[in-house]
Amino acid sequence: MSLKSAYMGAWLKGEGPESDIVVSSRLRLARNLEGFKFKGRMGEDEELLLEAHLREKVVDSTFGDNMCYLSLNELDDLDRLLLVESHLISLEHFNGDGRRGVAYDQSGSVSIMINEEDHLRIQVLAPGLALREQLHRINAIDDTLAEQVPYSFNTDFGFLTTCPTNVGTGLRVSVMLHLPALALSKHIQKVFNAVEKVNLAVRGFFGEGSQALGDFYQISNQVTLGVSQEEALLELDKVLPRIIEYERDVRQALLDDERKVLEDKVFRAMAILQNARSIPTEEAMVHLSFLRMGIFLQMVDDVSIDAVNKLFLIIQPGHLQSLVGSELLPEDRDVERASIIRKELQDD
Amino acid sequence: MSLKSAYMGAWLKGEGPESDIVVSSRLRLARNLEGFKFKGRMGEDEELLLEAHLREKVVDSTFGDNMCYLSLNELDDLDRLLLVESHLISLEHFNGDGRRGVAYDQSGSVSIMINEEDHLRIQVLAPGLALREQLHRINAIDDTLAEQVPYSFNTDFGFLTTCPTNVGTGLRVSVMLHLPALALSKHIQKVFNAVEKVNLAVRGFFGEGSQALGDFYQISNQVTLGVSQEEALLELDKVLPRIIEYERDVRQALLDDERKVLEDKVFRAMAILQNARSIPTEEAMVHLSFLRMGIFLQMVDDVSIDAVNKLFLIIQPGHLQSLVGSELLPEDRDVERASIIRKELQDD
Repeated sequence: MSLKSAYMGAWLKGEGPESDIVVSSRLRLARNLEGFKFKGRMGEDEELLLEAHLREKVVDSTFGDNMCYLSLNELDDLDRLLLVESHLISLEHFNGDGRRGVAYDQSGSVSIMINEEDHLRIQVLAPGLALREQLHRINAIDDTLAEQVPYSFNTDFGFLTTCPTNVGTGLRVSVMLHLPALALSKHIQKVFNAVEKVNLAVRGFFGEGSQALGDFYQISNQVTLGVSQEEALLELDKVLPRIIEYERDVRQALLDDERKVLEDKVFRAMAILQNARSIPTEEAMVHLSFLRMGIFLQMVDDVSIDAVNKLFLIIQPGHLQSLVGSELLPEDRDVERASIIRKELQDD
Repeated sequence: MSLKSAYMGAWLKGEGPESDIVVSSRLRLARNLEGFKFKGRMGEDEELLLEAHLREKVVDSTFGDNMCYLSLNELDDLDRLLLVESHLISLEHFNGDGRRGVAYDQSGSVSIMINEEDHLRIQVLAPGLALREQLHRINAIDDTLAEQVPYSFNTDFGFLTTCPTNVGTGLRVSVMLHLPALALSKHIQKVFNAVEKVNLAVRGFFGEGSQALGDFYQISNQVTLGVSQEEALLELDKVLPRIIEYERDVRQALLDDERKVLEDKVFRAMAILQNARSIPTEEAMVHLSFLRMGIFLQMVDDVSIDAVNKLFLIIQPGHLQSLVGSELLPEDRDVERASIIRKELQDD
């Protein structure tokens, strides 16, 4: 499998429940192996040993050809960037040091980071709102891996992790929400306040330490200690339907009361995407965001949501340069980006 | 003749020498009548008398049906705004008080303001660079009027005017230049500096006291005392060809070196104009400016320069509301403006 095909992430298909607002669901488990020091305390030799052990004895023997393994130390910056943009590795894993790698499946919906902050970070990604199915899925993977290696586990605390905020279940549940109407109508801060009041976190497009781009916000649980997996899901269950309904209500209110304002945003976005000869990532994301909303509001019918979701990914600097096949200066990337977008939106 | 037809100003035809850069040429003469006090020193009765005198004995008897006369005191704000936007009256005349009026011909290329700052302000407007023909034309009108009424004239100073800056010839010569490439490449300030060094003035789209909009700049002479009409023209003759060449050179340099940047500006402008559902005047002017340049650079071939020039006029608040037939709130004007622009650019 070539690295490039990673961009066809199944989680970006624009399908799944509530997909007008919930782009994707993501769950991850932090796990560490008994018999190895925590990350940061290992020497280089031990890191090498751990990577080899996890790769060959655990991942390869468990998943066989279904998983592709990449050692991050052998990749150049561009390839590692591709993995971040595909949400297969974290920003921390991208920027990290030491021996580390990632295993992921063909569809880009499962990834296992090795030697990120913890020895293992197991992640599943799916389009739309699908927390319970994905919890079953990630637990199945976790169970399979646990048969191969003994996890570092304490009967009082639960799973032990490098950072205390992950001790317990080691589970983080996140959803990526698309909230353009709440952002446009300046109601978004109310959502943030409500979310943070119940101990959930709001983050940007690429998770921890990233910016919100194009009105995409990631909401996730914070507490892993003293709560069960089910309780963590319930925390999100309480809040998510209200945010989804809020966004839908504001979209409808804008349609009813300020249709021209909304149409203006959507048609300008479409026009600029179809005609710009140079466009930076951030600007493209903003326009794609309005176009995405326009499709769900049936203002635009000649562009598919698949095309838009695909663009969100392939216009990122890593995917873009990978598509072109060479490293480019930022101004040349902007020109290529505009060209790729025009082509994609014409083919539809 | 209805007031509305004023917007088909012949000076906006996009014809004439150097019309890629010189939108229009404008000359005006400031004249006062012997036997009447200067404006501001007249009582209301005398103003009424002067207006009636100038209208009936001078304008009507001289030009007959070729000129339409409007008393500004009888017009509402919207109609007076139409006259400003058509460049038939000045901002000062629009905002002024006292009895005052304007006579103008069917094509909008001659106007005679009565009781503006001076008793008479004679103006001629033409598309492109046409200073000498227009000087002959305005002098012919001036001579004809002088046969009807004795002008206030001093053999030492020349024509006497309310403001000392107009004493002498009473002539102001202006050209409206379209300088998008110089503005885009940040060279425009050099032009301003050079122009001001030779005692010429740079002003905005509606002349004195107005802002530059869409990269249109009006350049005019300042000195009327101790210089002949010919010398005033020569001042502009020295500078204009260099500015025109400078703008053309920068356009070509941008085409050669940064074609994508230029195309991006032009195609985005066109796309937004053809798709926006709401657009303020200032933004529309900016996009029309790039579209105008794009037409002259043969990047756009399905829009005529006539259509663009017409849009510059009819998107102004006065013309817009006149077209719609009612006064509108600013946000409703923005929606109507977008609609008018879309229609005009589709019909082409």
